[in-house]
Amino acid sequence: MGSGAARIDLNADLGEGIGDDAAMLGIVTSANVACGFHAGTPAQLLATCRAAVDAGVRIGAQVSYPDRSGFGRRFMEMTTPDLVADLVYQIGALDALARSVGGAVTYVKPHGALYNTIVHHEQQAEAVVTAVRDVDAGLAVMGLPGSEVLSRARRAGLDTISEAFADRAYTPEGTLVPRGTDGAVLSDSAEIARRVVELVTTGRIGAIDGTLIDVDAGSVCLHGDTPGAVGHAQAVRDALTAAGIVIGAPPA
Amino acid sequence: MGSGAARIDLNADLGEGIGDDAAMLGIVTSANVACGFHAGTPAQLLATCRAAVDAGVRIGAQVSYPDRSGFGRRFMEMTTPDLVADLVYQIGALDALARSVGGAVTYVKPHGALYNTIVHHEQQAEAVVTAVRDVDAGLAVMGLPGSEVLSRARRAGLDTISEAFADRAYTPEGTLVPRGTDGAVLSDSAEIARRVVELVTTGRIGAIDGTLIDVDAGSVCLHGDTPGAVGHAQAVRDALTAAGIVIGAPPA
Amino acid sequence: MGSGAARIDLNADLGEGIGDDAAMLGIVTSANVACGFHAGTPAQLLATCRAAVDAGVRIGAQVSYPDRSGFGRRFMEMTTPDLVADLVYQIGALDALARSVGGAVTYVKPHGALYNTIVHHEQQAEAVVTAVRDVDAGLAVMGLPGSEVLSRARRAGLDTISEAFADRAYTPEGTLVPRGTDGAVLSDSAEIARRVVELVTTGRIGAIDGTLIDVDAGSVCLHGDTPGAVGHAQAVRDALTAAGIVIGAPPA
Amino acid sequence: MGSGAARIDLNADLGEGIGDDAAMLGIVTSANVACGFHAGTPAQLLATCRAAVDAGVRIGAQVSYPDRSGFGRRFMEMTTPDLVADLVYQIGALDALARSVGGAVTYVKPHGALYNTIVHHEQQAEAVVTAVRDVDAGLAVMGLPGSEVLSRARRAGLDTISEAFADRAYTPEGTLVPRGTDGAVLSDSAEIARRVVELVTTGRIGAIDGTLIDVDAGSVCLHGDTPGAVGHAQAVRDALTAAGIVIGAPPA
Repeated sequence: MGSGAARIDLNADLGEGIGDDAAMLGIVTSANVACGFHAGTPAQLLATCRAAVDAGVRIGAQVSYPDRSGFGRRFMEMTTPDLVADLVYQIGALDALARSVGGAVTYVKPHGALYNTIVHHEQQAEAVVTAVRDVDAGLAVMGLPGSEVLSRARRAGLDTISEAFADRAYTPEGTLVPRGTDGAVLSDSAEIARRVVELVTTGRIGAIDGTLIDVDAGSVCLHGDTPGAVGHAQAVRDALTAAGIVIGAPPA
Repeated sequence: MGSGAARIDLNADLGEGIGDDAAMLGIVTSANVACGFHAGTPAQLLATCRAAVDAGVRIGAQVSYPDRSGFGRRFMEMTTPDLVADLVYQIGALDALARSVGGAVTYVKPHGALYNTIVHHEQQAEAVVTAVRDVDAGLAVMGLPGSEVLSRARRAGLDTISEAFADRAYTPEGTLVPRGTDGAVLSDSAEIARRVVELVTTGRIGAIDGTLIDVDAGSVCLHGDTPGAVGHAQAVRDALTAAGIVIGAPPA
Repeated sequence: MGSGAARIDLNADLGEGIGDDAAMLGIVTSANVACGFHAGTPAQLLATCRAAVDAGVRIGAQVSYPDRSGFGRRFMEMTTPDLVADLVYQIGALDALARSVGGAVTYVKPHGALYNTIVHHEQQAEAVVTAVRDVDAGLAVMGLPGSEVLSRARRAGLDTISEAFADRAYTPEGTLVPRGTDGAVLSDSAEIARRVVELVTTGRIGAIDGTLIDVDAGSVCLHGDTPGAVGHAQAVRDALTAAGIVIGAPPA
Repeated sequence: MGSGAARIDLNADLGEGIGDDAAMLGIVTSANVACGFHAGTPAQLLATCRAAVDAGVRIGAQVSYPDRSGFGRRFMEMTTPDLVADLVYQIGALDALARSVGGAVTYVKPHGALYNTIVHHEQQAEAVVTAVRDVDAGLAVMGLPGSEVLSRARRAGLDTISEAFADRAYTPEGTLVPRGTDGAVLSDSAEIARRVVELVTTGRIGAIDGTLIDVDAGSVCLHGDTPGAVGHAQAVRDALTAAGIVIGAPPA
């Protein structure tokens, strides 16, 4: 890779049984694979890992609260020992599945309510960092730029991956415009693709009020659980390629 | 270890939330730790692994059918891919928990109905062997002498641990007298202890009809889920020690 | 209803999160609603019951083995007390959900592996009959004509609903041609619709070898979990209507 | 019952697999039976209902968050539709089990974190009231005196049962001294029994600072999950009987 070539990783949630995993594996370079606590059976997760390995896509453990009936989307109070144990269990389980088909878990991305909670919640953020370090200090943590969990992960010496969202509007302060707000979710493929290229080439993105803001992104999250979303994802990839940007996880 | 000293491993099921784990960890040298599919939460399993490490007891993964409401005691038909994935998931999860406290899973002992099924069931026995090998070909498989699963494990190049049961009567053919039959389960501590010493020192045990039979045992299974059972277990350990027998897993 | 008008009930599996429930509720007159043991969360099941009530479709409890990771498709050995309790629990849970939105469970249709098992398995068939009678002797049991469960249900004084399968081929003996066999599943909407009309008007259907066989059917099972299946289901309904056949559950 | 005879109901949690249910059924007059969301299998719950019916003890549904691995002791954020559906499902399931052995659910007592949450949490308190009313407006709600849930239940026209805790210290404001605080949990059987008799005969109890406070109690909660607790429970019953107090649920 020449020093002048921009580079970006594309990630998506897989193995949840709700999206077009096969299509997304042809687009992304990082697969956040469910671990059975919010979705997925071991056989489904194994199949997802195999497909990711075949597609040359790196595997992350998409860990969750133990909440299958709520798809991991509900906040749960958990003691540190309980949360650490649940996370170590999930990472270990998925890593064994991945290794059995020639892959490995290389990063951890918390899912749903846990993802949102550890943006601010110190105790749970620390539990995530502890769990990752307890399993393997070589694992990276993927999360929101500026989040509590990424700060603590860095202080603990872990690699971190900050991510941007391709189809979400940003506030002038650099946070996501909450779902439900007018304009919070973008639906035009060309516009989504244009923004991602702008982000990767300039490090900035236009906020909902038109101001340009800095966004630190090592990866861009794409969604695959609606037919339209696969189209958006492909548009993003095509636009990045056309702009000469290298798509892929950072070299190990 | 001198060449003249007999040696035997003692194992028990732990982490199921039904027995006196602390007492048993002072007696056995191998802990079959539940993996969450028939019993145990990650936090409970982590605590069990930590206690085993502290006690210097090696850790085995007590894998099960996915049947919490039946405590893994009910036969389930499962395709090979489903069973392999469930087992890889469990072994990986427990191994990560064990490693996070300085231990590691070193063998796999199927639980309950799965244990009994793979004495004869070729497809499920093969799935167990495949799962163990897929995770780590250095893991041993613990099971019944003469079982389908141990034969296949040996053919696959895996280490095996055949086990005897301290408190169960044997038929003249060397199988266990079925529970429910008169005399199937022994309840006298002294008698149980005497039989285990006999087994370890002579390789034979008295069958229910009085004949002496050969029993190949690398480990003796003790039960810990009744107060009486802990007494039996301690009696076995004391008798073995008094007979000069080394208690412990084979040196690595 | 005049005495000359033929009548048939149409049923489909709903609430499993895998098909087009809304479309199917416009076609069928009986909804087999999952009970949470193979699929469905309480919130999903409640929404399905509400939609069924709004559509004027009667509700049946689609009870299952406790096997979410296998979608209830795997045989499980279960003692009679365990199976009876699991079934009573499921029927009661779904009935309360149905009643909270103005409906009620009026029949029970076992799902997946349980459905197939109780065609022949006397102990489990008896457990199903016991559970239904224990909850409410006014509930009907839906199953395969000639099955052990329907015989026992009738002997116990329960109403029964025997069902035919719109898109499955029959052997000359009147059993279903096993899936996987060539021609076992029909895929032509017109052919499927023609066969159902023939069945309802004559009581016979053409077997895979061309012979005409008697099939006792109080309901016809349609599938809704593929886009093509909804088309088949609509074709069946349209053809029955065109033939002047009344579509609906028997009057109470 | 003469107008001069004081009367009190005694309740305990059963069917959780952790206490001495048989002993407690000889002491209490109301059994809070788990519903499978925090503990208990359908077979265990059915057995508990049967034992309660045999002992002439009324049955309440001890509903919980869907949190088996946390034993229902962790707060969960839940939307109203999700929580209502989960509660309707649980009450219906347990009621069907109870009716199959000649009993019935007559009240609902939320468990663990849900119990504590709805002391103050308006949205979840309302969801509990909605669920109970949706199942059967004749069911009573058991909870803490002064709690949000009891206020809302009364406004909705439901019967309520306020409860006191036999072995817990009270603040001068009438709330429970938090566990972990010195003196929060009483351990002397005679003292516990004396306080309950005082409460039932005077409507007052001594707070931790010695002041006498009013406590509105239609039932007294006993614990049965430690051997000592069964002794406390028996002491309470014996002291009430000796004081001429009628022990039992209010006549229907």
